[in-house]
Amino acid sequence: MAPTLVTLADIRSAAQRLHGSVLRTPLLPAPWGDPDRPLWLKPESLQEIGAFKVRGALNAIGRLGADDRRRGVVAYSSGNHAQAVAYAAARFGMTAHIVMPEETPRIKIERTRAHGAQVVLCGIGRREAVAAELVEQTGASLIPPFDHPDIIAGQGTAGLEIAEDLPEVGTVLIPVSGGGLASGVGTAIRALCPNARIFGVEPELAADTAEGLRRGRRIEMSIEDRNRTIADGLRSQPSELTFAHLQHVLDDVLTVSEEQIRSAVAELATKARLVVEPSGAVGLAAYRHHHTPAAPTVIVVSGGNIEPTLLTEILAESAAVGEDQRD
Amino acid sequence: MAPTLVTLADIRSAAQRLHGSVLRTPLLPAPWGDPDRPLWLKPESLQEIGAFKVRGALNAIGRLGADDRRRGVVAYSSGNHAQAVAYAAARFGMTAHIVMPEETPRIKIERTRAHGAQVVLCGIGRREAVAAELVEQTGASLIPPFDHPDIIAGQGTAGLEIAEDLPEVGTVLIPVSGGGLASGVGTAIRALCPNARIFGVEPELAADTAEGLRRGRRIEMSIEDRNRTIADGLRSQPSELTFAHLQHVLDDVLTVSEEQIRSAVAELATKARLVVEPSGAVGLAAYRHHHTPAAPTVIVVSGGNIEPTLLTEILAESAAVGEDQRD
Repeated sequence: MAPTLVTLADIRSAAQRLHGSVLRTPLLPAPWGDPDRPLWLKPESLQEIGAFKVRGALNAIGRLGADDRRRGVVAYSSGNHAQAVAYAAARFGMTAHIVMPEETPRIKIERTRAHGAQVVLCGIGRREAVAAELVEQTGASLIPPFDHPDIIAGQGTAGLEIAEDLPEVGTVLIPVSGGGLASGVGTAIRALCPNARIFGVEPELAADTAEGLRRGRRIEMSIEDRNRTIADGLRSQPSELTFAHLQHVLDDVLTVSEEQIRSAVAELATKARLVVEPSGAVGLAAYRHHHTPAAPTVIVVSGGNIEPTLLTEILAESAAVGEDQRD
Repeated sequence: MAPTLVTLADIRSAAQRLHGSVLRTPLLPAPWGDPDRPLWLKPESLQEIGAFKVRGALNAIGRLGADDRRRGVVAYSSGNHAQAVAYAAARFGMTAHIVMPEETPRIKIERTRAHGAQVVLCGIGRREAVAAELVEQTGASLIPPFDHPDIIAGQGTAGLEIAEDLPEVGTVLIPVSGGGLASGVGTAIRALCPNARIFGVEPELAADTAEGLRRGRRIEMSIEDRNRTIADGLRSQPSELTFAHLQHVLDDVLTVSEEQIRSAVAELATKARLVVEPSGAVGLAAYRHHHTPAAPTVIVVSGGNIEPTLLTEILAESAAVGEDQRD
């Protein structure tokens, strides 16, 4: 049986629940884009936790009943969902256990702990199992990173805001990992801006959804393969639920190389004055390297939690390339 | 005779004129501040030209009559005002000549040209004279960087927005150079939030206003001395008009060292995910190194036009210090 899809009404209801608890990020004009394809950025990197994930987490936790809230929450995540659940749980005065892979960037672990959550580190590929054990032990509610209608509806509120701020939007570029963001934003845009083209964006090294949509079914890519991309937030694969949404709302999925992602991080820092993590920069990489339609384009800049040393390295590379080109 | 001061009504009228033409920047929570002194950022670095200056320029140019508009505008500036006037003139379809000192960061020159303005480079201390010659030759209107009520009223719109978004604000920290921003924002906050403390912030190496307010009159500091600070946007001195405003609206001017400014640039990049120029970071430096009142504090992050090589250098320094501290 096909899963029931999240509706515009669900997203509107999430927006009411989130009002005042998340930043309504502005749509930033980016006049340094291609003159024929006006460019706008939706900087979710400016959320207090540095990523859109706070939208889904607050919506899901906000819908828990009083008994569930007393037992706390558990989540597993490579990073931004971890901070989101930690933040949302703290806002509701709840305890949170967050399971994170050992290779998670240190900055994301530190920031998750800073919200008062208990961080449980685990080996590669083990996080779902460890989270399930914690749920068993504590009776807490599992807040999944993407595989839940409340999460999808919460992420979709970013799409509502885009449609409100730029109703004539022609192209929307959204990073795809587990697919919660693209499912939610895509659902909102599809409903409110029926003429807009909606593209997911994946790293070439973790392009399971691009391939899956082409074949009409989810495909499996090993986690070792997916871990090759620098975009550490884009190493998950859609669930049955999010894949069904993506099939319904996306026109296509575009892929970008590692070099293109690094360049886009540098371009966002120097031209948009935004610190963006690799996963958050894939939309700009796709805009720069694919022939998207000549219409106002919105890029969802999904997050900004990059290791300072990586940012420094990417900026230094980019400055060196710039010097070469001027010689 | 004491100059006539800009009023809240002037600023409200500027806000109407600017509505839809400038970004209404969000107030960003900064939970990584001191727990006893809640911190918020007003990121004017996110304006399309990367700085608050667009507010004053659009207000001043928007008030020119049809005849004046035909003759174009002239401005002189070390950078951000240049881009602001170039941008505002282009929006009104006017020609703009911009006089810039030869030592201006290249990125600011390039971006001024990108708005279609003619850039005229000049030697140190010569920009006022060169601008006056251009006005004489072309009949264009001079748009001064700060010494005009329309500029002050335009910059003040950022203060209106702070008062609307956080009426309980207790402390406001505003960079001071020529004083247009601090005059305008200070006037709005003083009128709307009478209990707030309002501080200007200057680099120690260009602290003419701190000293001037203490003595009750403007003091002269040589441009060679002022040019020592890395904060290239804070090397001007108030005019009679802005000094009169600053005397009226500021509680005091705090000063910060070069090292504190560099640290604040790094902190804004890593914790607020904002690329900020040194001049835009002095508010955070003051917050970190002065005992400001224990009340919600708003820092006006005035601009983000930093040379990529300088940003890279500062981030690398900061990462090295971080590693040392962890050893």
